[in-house]
Amino acid sequence: MRKLYVIGIGAGDPDQVTVQAIKAMNKVGVFFVIGKGAEKQELVDVRTGILDEHMDRPYRIVEVQDPPRDRAPENYGAVVDDWHDRRADLLAARFAELGDEDAAILVWGDPALYDSTLRIVERVRGRLDFDYEVIPGITAPQALAARHRIVLNRIGEPIHITTGRRLAEETVTNTVVMLDGECSFTKVEGDVDIWWGAYLGMPDEELIAGKLRDVEGHIQQRRAELRERKGWIMDTYLLRR
Amino acid sequence: MRKLYVIGIGAGDPDQVTVQAIKAMNKVGVFFVIGKGAEKQELVDVRTGILDEHMDRPYRIVEVQDPPRDRAPENYGAVVDDWHDRRADLLAARFAELGDEDAAILVWGDPALYDSTLRIVERVRGRLDFDYEVIPGITAPQALAARHRIVLNRIGEPIHITTGRRLAEETVTNTVVMLDGECSFTKVEGDVDIWWGAYLGMPDEELIAGKLRDVEGHIQQRRAELRERKGWIMDTYLLRR
Repeated sequence: MRKLYVIGIGAGDPDQVTVQAIKAMNKVGVFFVIGKGAEKQELVDVRTGILDEHMDRPYRIVEVQDPPRDRAPENYGAVVDDWHDRRADLLAARFAELGDEDAAILVWGDPALYDSTLRIVERVRGRLDFDYEVIPGITAPQALAARHRIVLNRIGEPIHITTGRRLAEETVTNTVVMLDGECSFTKVEGDVDIWWGAYLGMPDEELIAGKLRDVEGHIQQRRAELRERKGWIMDTYLLRR
Repeated sequence: MRKLYVIGIGAGDPDQVTVQAIKAMNKVGVFFVIGKGAEKQELVDVRTGILDEHMDRPYRIVEVQDPPRDRAPENYGAVVDDWHDRRADLLAARFAELGDEDAAILVWGDPALYDSTLRIVERVRGRLDFDYEVIPGITAPQALAARHRIVLNRIGEPIHITTGRRLAEETVTNTVVMLDGECSFTKVEGDVDIWWGAYLGMPDEELIAGKLRDVEGHIQQRRAELRERKGWIMDTYLLRR
């Protein structure tokens, strides 16, 4: 049966790709890129760099354009659900066109963490007959911890991973925050430490750590400058009370 | 300044080592193994296999014997603290004996997740002058998610990572449990799904998934059989309500 590989490629450092990911990449000659139109050229370049460094055979990129999406819907769940359905239609059509060729989808970080590729692939399986395999990758929180040389938990403590959207209502013993475009850490009260990182593993990597109250203004300002200068930002942080 | 590398080597599959980890391994000729005396031969063999597959130069293993430890202390925090201090003394002594040679410590999974190596290394820095670098690795929860082909969170939901010891008192929207020798999932009530995995990425890998109430007995029994047969077990699981 033909096969689709969903491959985590890490947070951006080409060296943070696993041997398993490199082997899976070299089993295929076609990579689907979902929603490339909306992607920043610099991220496209980082991914191309990862492929060029690790591929031993010729390959081609097949773009799967994203359908339009309501970015501030009233019913978030239903809108995302419908959007995934339409993405699945488009991916199924492109995959069918390949005949019996195997293919792969590269995912930033790990497909298991805040990524919708596996949900879309499961829907494509309702439309086409194929098998698929998942390859884990290093996530941004792991790159963050490594660069700050910290353990995400203190001894025996739990770790909570959440989004900026939900941060205000959740505890922060050890909280890793992803997908926060609003600097939600400024709304967290009390005696809290923060370890923040942007463009982790890439040449422009930036790290800031300290007491939240001492560094929050600095992070906000630096984040705004970087986003302005580069046109995009990828960042994550750990909060610890 | 001489350097110590703390390298995450993944959950057991030699292919789940990153290029960054392989490059760091090949910068040194000495690997410290902390507490090898207590380790199962099979795990020693897996690690030796990883080194043999990826090392391009001769190397040697230097064992750092573990000091004795009270396994069921009344004051858990203080006992662990003292134990880490004594481990740091032993590691500092071995590292000092190497003169100005660089070295590395290999850590299962990722040094950022439920591992005390970085805490010990920080203490060694109070006794010896050196720099250190941390290399992230694929964790058991990531290997678990990849093998079950699941995303750890549903759309927008948080993920909680905790230990068996604390599971009873914590919520289970999406809860990843590590370090559970007691099958604590049997104490979780209500309509919950479980994805369980043991020896992830190794030849003996076992996976079970389903409604918790339907499969909990099967997991308990299989876990006991495997631990009996092999003499040790490494497992982790995701609970979702």
